[in-house]
Amino acid sequence: MTDFAATKARFHLPEGVIYLDGNSLGPLPRHAQERMSRTMQDEWGEMLITGWNKAGWMDQPTRVGDRIARLIGAEPGHVVMGDTLSIKVYQALASAIAMNPDRRVILSDSGNFPSDLYMAEGLIGFLGKGHELRVVAPEEVADNITDEVAVMMITEVDYRTGRMHDMKALTAKAHAHGVVTVWDLAHTAGATPVDLRGANADFAVGCTYKYLNGGPGAPAFIYVNPRHADAALPALSGWLGHDAPFAFEPSYRPGPGIERMRVGTPPVLALAALDAALDIWDMTDMPAIRARSLELTDRFIAGIEAACPMLQLATPRDHAQRGSQVSFRFAEGYAAMQALIARGVIGDFRAPDIMRFGFTPLYIDDSDVDAAIAIITDVMQNDLWDRPEYKTRAKVT
Amino acid sequence: MTDFAATKARFHLPEGVIYLDGNSLGPLPRHAQERMSRTMQDEWGEMLITGWNKAGWMDQPTRVGDRIARLIGAEPGHVVMGDTLSIKVYQALASAIAMNPDRRVILSDSGNFPSDLYMAEGLIGFLGKGHELRVVAPEEVADNITDEVAVMMITEVDYRTGRMHDMKALTAKAHAHGVVTVWDLAHTAGATPVDLRGANADFAVGCTYKYLNGGPGAPAFIYVNPRHADAALPALSGWLGHDAPFAFEPSYRPGPGIERMRVGTPPVLALAALDAALDIWDMTDMPAIRARSLELTDRFIAGIEAACPMLQLATPRDHAQRGSQVSFRFAEGYAAMQALIARGVIGDFRAPDIMRFGFTPLYIDDSDVDAAIAIITDVMQNDLWDRPEYKTRAKVT
Repeated sequence: MTDFAATKARFHLPEGVIYLDGNSLGPLPRHAQERMSRTMQDEWGEMLITGWNKAGWMDQPTRVGDRIARLIGAEPGHVVMGDTLSIKVYQALASAIAMNPDRRVILSDSGNFPSDLYMAEGLIGFLGKGHELRVVAPEEVADNITDEVAVMMITEVDYRTGRMHDMKALTAKAHAHGVVTVWDLAHTAGATPVDLRGANADFAVGCTYKYLNGGPGAPAFIYVNPRHADAALPALSGWLGHDAPFAFEPSYRPGPGIERMRVGTPPVLALAALDAALDIWDMTDMPAIRARSLELTDRFIAGIEAACPMLQLATPRDHAQRGSQVSFRFAEGYAAMQALIARGVIGDFRAPDIMRFGFTPLYIDDSDVDAAIAIITDVMQNDLWDRPEYKTRAKVT
Repeated sequence: MTDFAATKARFHLPEGVIYLDGNSLGPLPRHAQERMSRTMQDEWGEMLITGWNKAGWMDQPTRVGDRIARLIGAEPGHVVMGDTLSIKVYQALASAIAMNPDRRVILSDSGNFPSDLYMAEGLIGFLGKGHELRVVAPEEVADNITDEVAVMMITEVDYRTGRMHDMKALTAKAHAHGVVTVWDLAHTAGATPVDLRGANADFAVGCTYKYLNGGPGAPAFIYVNPRHADAALPALSGWLGHDAPFAFEPSYRPGPGIERMRVGTPPVLALAALDAALDIWDMTDMPAIRARSLELTDRFIAGIEAACPMLQLATPRDHAQRGSQVSFRFAEGYAAMQALIARGVIGDFRAPDIMRFGFTPLYIDDSDVDAAIAIITDVMQNDLWDRPEYKTRAKVT
């Protein structure tokens, strides 16, 4: 049994705010400050260059990676931290493409996060070998897995609708057709149980600033299935992925397993904040998180649908297809979300018409959900969102 | 006139340590702690997702980039922060190669940092178009600039010997032969004056954890010459390099100028530490730094050569060819460096036989140099470095 009141107490949550945007940026774990201060003063300040050994900075990317492995059903020793999710997408995709040199189709879906699609476009353009990025509707992915496809690159949970793919079924079908899979776990790591090992996924990548609360711009992770790990081509072949980084050999020799997916010098300070955030995960497990998440999203859907008929549910009702967010379509969604934020209910807006609310059991409870429903109802029924001051579209939401 | 006693007071330097390894990892600026704490508590903690606008996180990569532009002779608005140096090398190299599609040689030298060469190898292998990485001796670069060369990729100051290339002359010769240039400023940014604009360099990249004191694993930077900026191909085409990142368009459209060299979500916490470190640079300028650096390295060379004939100078005596470090060759250099570190003189060792000492006027003064000379002399003359306890080679120095 997880004590969710205890996990909630571990976070700093601003006064008067109901924070339903942890699917974009998780809140500050209270003890992250102290951890960062220690890393800066006792490690960087006192150990200086010797911190790479003495403070274990050099092994930090795999040590932290192992803590995430536990949350995504990965084998220990097969997840490493570094870079950003976009870079990790490129790295996984390049390796996956190299495993299927005679095929030219990269299959993805329109629910994938744009940066994943953009990175694929950039890679294809640079490679110049006539690869095609085939983007289909999320519901049509399965039917488009054919012997023509080199790589299937999918984000498990749609960032707009919260719709969740069936990783196990899609991966199995992909493998039956000789397709290599790249799974983006941006909206699943820390949100829903993931079973990379059980699904036999080939590559997986994800970010840590959403449900894992690592802080703005926290480092990404990459997983490579153990059966590929010693053979995967590291297109981004940096010195810390070398078998002997400090031998300063003239030529690259990839390190063993996941080590080869390291690139440059690890972001020590950012990893310290993330490592602190991961401490909170020792107080719970993914089944407990999932059960609470579904209770919260069910409660929210029921409350909003009862009071706000103008909002159209975009998230699947079926638990098996739902991530840890709830999205509603509303033509004036941008303005409405601005009005909600002004009232302290922080969700976000995603073009063209999605109002998005994330639910993270670590710090969101029933009373938050009920308070949010009350405010949303008040705003929607009083058309507050329609006031002129909310009509201007800001650059960033 | 720079008050170097005042700049030194801005750093935390451990008791009993003479830190001559700022060319590997700069020390902690005292006020970086407070800045980080504010960024975590007042920005991340209180603003949450709204920090991207309210705290200016979204513009942080170019705002910090402009502070570095000033130190490397770059035009404002043409440097952006992010990722690691290895990633930025890949990005610059990919763009440079695309500008010379009919040529197949990438020219570099054996004094380049291995990760740069490794990244080039990985890129070439992945691209699979028969490019050749031609690595020549540092002294032979100029003679190897021919019409066959697509890209010249050079680190301005050799990480082992401290030998400095003539950026202006090599770039001019490169351009005369239609060669695109990529300059790695890892050992020059904050160490010696760089004039990217005057040299008409095409691309430049660098890290910020050495002479710029941004902290372990601090973000890298990339510069693109304004005449290429709106045409450069971003092979790593992430969403934050898109012309309209928050429109979530299905296809990539590169942003204007240097913006397109952004990739993923910026590392906000790490950039806050770096931004704090850059405050100290407002107290000085590169000519003042350079003048003091040469005084310090001259003083160190003279002192060591007078007392330690077994150490053979590997750094050029000629000021025009010297970076801000001094290296000596010594067969038992690894053991000797371990002995020095045990005595509080922190330099580092680079295989096969280089003992390396960095001099950073911001916090190293004449008394440090004299004290270091005395200790090195004592260690070398007493063969302390030859004791068994220093004979074991550790994994990382």
